[in-house]
Amino acid sequence: MYSVIMAGGVGKRFWPRSRKDRPKQLLNIMDHQSMLRLTVDRLHKISDYKEIFIVTNKAQAELIRENVPEIPEQNVLLEPFGKNTAPAIALSAINILDLDPEAIMGVFPADHLIMKEDVFFEDLEKGVQSVAEKNCLVTFGIEPSWPSTGYGYIQYDTKKILLEDKVYKVKTFAEKPNLNTAERFLRSGDFLWNSGIFVWRARTILRQMKAHMPELYDSAVTIKEALGTEDYFQVVEREWKTLRSESIDYGVMEKSGNVYVVRGEFFWSDLGSWSSVYELSEKDDQENVIEGEALLVDSSGNYVYSPDRFVASVGLNNMVIINTEDVTMIVEKSRDEDVKKIVDALEKRGMDDYL
Amino acid sequence: MYSVIMAGGVGKRFWPRSRKDRPKQLLNIMDHQSMLRLTVDRLHKISDYKEIFIVTNKAQAELIRENVPEIPEQNVLLEPFGKNTAPAIALSAINILDLDPEAIMGVFPADHLIMKEDVFFEDLEKGVQSVAEKNCLVTFGIEPSWPSTGYGYIQYDTKKILLEDKVYKVKTFAEKPNLNTAERFLRSGDFLWNSGIFVWRARTILRQMKAHMPELYDSAVTIKEALGTEDYFQVVEREWKTLRSESIDYGVMEKSGNVYVVRGEFFWSDLGSWSSVYELSEKDDQENVIEGEALLVDSSGNYVYSPDRFVASVGLNNMVIINTEDVTMIVEKSRDEDVKKIVDALEKRGMDDYL
Repeated sequence: MYSVIMAGGVGKRFWPRSRKDRPKQLLNIMDHQSMLRLTVDRLHKISDYKEIFIVTNKAQAELIRENVPEIPEQNVLLEPFGKNTAPAIALSAINILDLDPEAIMGVFPADHLIMKEDVFFEDLEKGVQSVAEKNCLVTFGIEPSWPSTGYGYIQYDTKKILLEDKVYKVKTFAEKPNLNTAERFLRSGDFLWNSGIFVWRARTILRQMKAHMPELYDSAVTIKEALGTEDYFQVVEREWKTLRSESIDYGVMEKSGNVYVVRGEFFWSDLGSWSSVYELSEKDDQENVIEGEALLVDSSGNYVYSPDRFVASVGLNNMVIINTEDVTMIVEKSRDEDVKKIVDALEKRGMDDYL
Repeated sequence: MYSVIMAGGVGKRFWPRSRKDRPKQLLNIMDHQSMLRLTVDRLHKISDYKEIFIVTNKAQAELIRENVPEIPEQNVLLEPFGKNTAPAIALSAINILDLDPEAIMGVFPADHLIMKEDVFFEDLEKGVQSVAEKNCLVTFGIEPSWPSTGYGYIQYDTKKILLEDKVYKVKTFAEKPNLNTAERFLRSGDFLWNSGIFVWRARTILRQMKAHMPELYDSAVTIKEALGTEDYFQVVEREWKTLRSESIDYGVMEKSGNVYVVRGEFFWSDLGSWSSVYELSEKDDQENVIEGEALLVDSSGNYVYSPDRFVASVGLNNMVIINTEDVTMIVEKSRDEDVKKIVDALEKRGMDDYL
């Protein structure tokens, strides 16, 4: 199996730690290693480095090569700029197809947290087995442990079983729900969190693109013809300008009739924002999570990241406080998705020093 | 008139700006000058520098001399350590009495904000006139503009008038009231805020101490006898160890029958904590006060002091955020009195670097 790591995002919600030249996947968020480094190390347990591809954009290429120098340079696939997941997957599929017309490829986000690796590899193997048997598109779902409104969901057909107790036919994809709907999903028992991990044959996903995203398919064919020529980057750039920004979920998965889901039992989190880091971290007696030195008096439920600066508070509850070298950022934990708004405002004002 | 500036406090509530080696009166809180500097400059408009005394403690002496080098060294009176206002006033009274047995002295806190200086000097003159006429103790009250629970109050006798519309006999002193009581005080019309400013003859306050604080008086006499001798500091130190910590309000003013109050019409604030700085500062469109560079999205009612560091927030309301060189401090504006608790906790833990 070839592995494709999707590493083009910025992770605005992790500002001010995430910056233009320090995207989320290059941060040490839950470990002393970057998210990308952890992802590469995990996949290297089942693949050679030369079978691991990284899709990113030009702006991040250099940083990524420095962070994971073991990945061969030609395996770092460059988008001129991000166009969501479908074009990135098309680009990796044609590169892999060029190496092996029957290649099975797994697609993995660079910046998600995975634990219980043994279970992860077993579940992944079930996905590969399903592709080999049915030549289907396989997605990985996670048994939901709370009614999250931050994740997309996958409903499976409990009666259409490909591998007993593990792989099912997908019934529907659902976008991030409101709380009521999320609670209903949780009760129903046949909804899983959409992990953004996929397995399929490179030729299969391209054929599905031909059916459901013909423009993207045409661009992919054009680029494939330029592979190995000196025009390659120019061709990619030209095609990329014309492409619609589209997710693989919306562009293909929701429309294809041949999609199966592995009921994943490994631990997974997309680490979407500071509150998810808080939730996954060990709390002190006051239910605070403190990275660095802090004195929080009558304060609880706070997440403090401040490795080089003393933080003090009194009567402060459920806040996120981030001190980087140059910025202090403060937001209520329940509103931490809104950190994006700060980044948007900085962009609007051209305050590039802090982007 | 001699002026005595009470400059022994630390101002814990202004932590982390106020520190052991940077007490509140040496901070530039509402101006580009320190509170002490502003107080000295104000009094210098009516007194020579050699008529201005500063009472402080040994730990602060050097810093204070640097901040106001115009004050003659012998006019910086040193307590071995703070014992509240009554002993500090006794110490200054015997020093002044030594220069002039009929001396009138004014007592002024070093760290309060005073505006409308012309009115202040006029009101002060009325106090001096009252002392000259009646040889009384004169205190300065401020017409309350809201039902403050952070100030002590003075009730005056509307029928016992020393100077028409301006100086009245004091009826009672009241400690910081609760909100109900403060509202009643405000409605009554005969309650004033206790500004902590006094005028009297040095010999009169000592005589009143003899009546109401005989132990302090005895110590003062002992110290007076040592004035100018090489034993002086040793004597002060020995006496200071035995003295009770006591405010002049509780120790003398509330007990003496010969106290008058000037109904002050100048602007006065004790600048007790960050919220009073917020209230007195100009707000931006979002009702935020920002000293430094900050981007507060959907945030209002905040006080941000961060001269050397960018601060960002989203959805943050009514908070105080202070960034000094080494500390980030965050507290709700309504709980800013509790900043003391942080300082107390730091002391308890021996975290001297941050004190």
